[in-house]
Amino acid sequence: MPTISHRGEVMPASPIRKLVPLANKAKEKGIKVFHLNIGQPDLPTPQIGLDALRHMHRRILEYSPSEGIKSLREKLVQYYDKFHIHVTADDIIITTGGSEAVLFSFMACLDPGDEIIVPEPAYANYMAFAISAGAVIKTLPSSIEEGFALPSIEKFESLITPKTKAILICNPNNPTGYLYTQREMNQIRDLVKKYDLFLFSDEVYREFCYTGAPYISAFHLEGIEEQVVLIDSVSKRYSECGIRIGALITRHKELKKSVMKFCQARLSPPLLGQIVAEASIDAPESYMLSTYNEYVERRKHLIDGLNRIPGCYSPIPMGAFYTVARLPVDNADKFCEWCLSEFEYEGQTIFMAPASGFYTTPGLGKNEVRLAYVLEKEELSKALIVLQKALETYPGRTINE
Amino acid sequence: MPTISHRGEVMPASPIRKLVPLANKAKEKGIKVFHLNIGQPDLPTPQIGLDALRHMHRRILEYSPSEGIKSLREKLVQYYDKFHIHVTADDIIITTGGSEAVLFSFMACLDPGDEIIVPEPAYANYMAFAISAGAVIKTLPSSIEEGFALPSIEKFESLITPKTKAILICNPNNPTGYLYTQREMNQIRDLVKKYDLFLFSDEVYREFCYTGAPYISAFHLEGIEEQVVLIDSVSKRYSECGIRIGALITRHKELKKSVMKFCQARLSPPLLGQIVAEASIDAPESYMLSTYNEYVERRKHLIDGLNRIPGCYSPIPMGAFYTVARLPVDNADKFCEWCLSEFEYEGQTIFMAPASGFYTTPGLGKNEVRLAYVLEKEELSKALIVLQKALETYPGRTINE
Repeated sequence: MPTISHRGEVMPASPIRKLVPLANKAKEKGIKVFHLNIGQPDLPTPQIGLDALRHMHRRILEYSPSEGIKSLREKLVQYYDKFHIHVTADDIIITTGGSEAVLFSFMACLDPGDEIIVPEPAYANYMAFAISAGAVIKTLPSSIEEGFALPSIEKFESLITPKTKAILICNPNNPTGYLYTQREMNQIRDLVKKYDLFLFSDEVYREFCYTGAPYISAFHLEGIEEQVVLIDSVSKRYSECGIRIGALITRHKELKKSVMKFCQARLSPPLLGQIVAEASIDAPESYMLSTYNEYVERRKHLIDGLNRIPGCYSPIPMGAFYTVARLPVDNADKFCEWCLSEFEYEGQTIFMAPASGFYTTPGLGKNEVRLAYVLEKEELSKALIVLQKALETYPGRTINE
Repeated sequence: MPTISHRGEVMPASPIRKLVPLANKAKEKGIKVFHLNIGQPDLPTPQIGLDALRHMHRRILEYSPSEGIKSLREKLVQYYDKFHIHVTADDIIITTGGSEAVLFSFMACLDPGDEIIVPEPAYANYMAFAISAGAVIKTLPSSIEEGFALPSIEKFESLITPKTKAILICNPNNPTGYLYTQREMNQIRDLVKKYDLFLFSDEVYREFCYTGAPYISAFHLEGIEEQVVLIDSVSKRYSECGIRIGALITRHKELKKSVMKFCQARLSPPLLGQIVAEASIDAPESYMLSTYNEYVERRKHLIDGLNRIPGCYSPIPMGAFYTVARLPVDNADKFCEWCLSEFEYEGQTIFMAPASGFYTTPGLGKNEVRLAYVLEKEELSKALIVLQKALETYPGRTINE
């Protein structure tokens, strides 16, 4: 029998999704599972987006243009304008989720062996897309003690080699919820300029900044306008992860041309998703505001709750809807598995993403988990109780406070 | 400014889509463009598929499982059963179009430098996905004179090296419309078995076989059950190319596990498309029959018409809805461009895909084009007149008969 590729072997299983079979087994046993593992909000998709589907009068569900429907790209121009990101419709290429925008950025900018520097913990699938592209991710640890702030710029510089082609950031950050400051963004800009790098900036959580600190887009940075590749997605802001609509935005002409060839190869992004996304951009202010307020509440609720559990610690995330928390356990991978396969409290258990999958440096994140506050407060309260009970019972508990 | 990747440079532009800007310009001038370039049928999507969207009662458009919705996979099991393809729901992984099924097959089976043998002309995007994966496509020319039959098995064998990992076929074939015979399929099977290769079999046109000759699926071949990777898509059979739903089907356990990691990285296939696809499988027999009959008529109409134009020749395609025709021109690339940019007949012109993009052997297909009979007969008649007039006017005409 022919063997699979080495690449296929070394691909990491998603730390967010790999425990799904265990969760399914727990559910089959009648156990209620609180899903804090995945960034799938329980908030409704904007009604205007759902209505666009219902009132669609197409007889044929045809291919759309490879770069996406023009009216959607034009509407996004106005949307970005509100965030002082000034681009044209031609700078915007619609992708199948933000995921494809990351993959195409890597494919079009990086050759096998080329290196990208990424602060960690980082969204685990960056690694998967890098492996797909044969590129090498070099990570720079940030730490829970420092609230996951940007590592010092000297540390960045120490990783730069002739193979370095890009820096990748996620801002506001998944999984940490960290929001980069103007000073940090300026440091990144200087580095990108000095070494003539691409700056891949994943900003899909821009709507969710909670502390009054400003959201600094990579496109706000002066002097590197053509080096920025913005990764975006409508999934999170409109709670429509399933429609698979994202965008890759760049002013780099050659790059645009190259990305378009990858787009043509896969023919077109999903038509129906584009219809929903375009309508969703017109969601009323009240929708965005109530979504925002809901996350503000949930954040406070989750973080307060976590920090009240003996031995647990979570910094206060400034954005997105995740936090990376430290738990009093020997091994968070084992603990998360154990919660799904061997534990229940009053017929309930909790599904968290072990943080080790968000680090590449061995040993880091061993006692950390990522939690997504995508459930309503009452559910979060119950989940916190379950977590506390689980920690009291877990045989690998490390601290008794 | 940082430079794009070598891979990004060598990616081919789609021969089907690269002339779209010229077509758009022609349309802006008020010229009617007959689209024979792309496999986008003008037939309606099944009503039952459209209704499934209209009556959907979801409030949140959530991620679906990475492997696709279970009920869709179960329905596909029954569908394949009708074609004597016996697989389980666990063998089926839903992909974002057949395109992603090809990409993930390559990613999970092939390492950079690994080789795939493909008879040419071949669907151009195979090349694009091979470049994405760093794999090498070695092509084996088939010829219009022999109706694009499978090249001799000795020629296949002469291309096999220690790097060869797979054979890729498309059956019924895009772009030629050729349908492989039982004998040819047995030869492929023997080769695959002898050299322990993967057999990637793209069978998205199985509904469209016109000559009474049987459709032989790669899964019908005995002794290589775990070596077959079937590529499928609902796009063509239900005229729903825009929903981006395909499938990768394999019984190879390790491969399945590896493909799932690529699936997890991109999170999920499009939810809305899966809903439409699942419902479309229940389209009434009358829908499939009228679609089939329509293509039978169009095929006859197009091929007869082409062969009546002086200097043109098209074999009679046995399946799919394409043909590769030879035209009396110096250079079909130039001719296709010229049709869009410098020619019109009574305010109309024709958009064809130059066949050179379907070959990798330099010089082959230079005077050939791919035509898709995806327009209704009246439109095809008008397009044929336009083609005849264009050939009479084109300065690079080579034959005067």
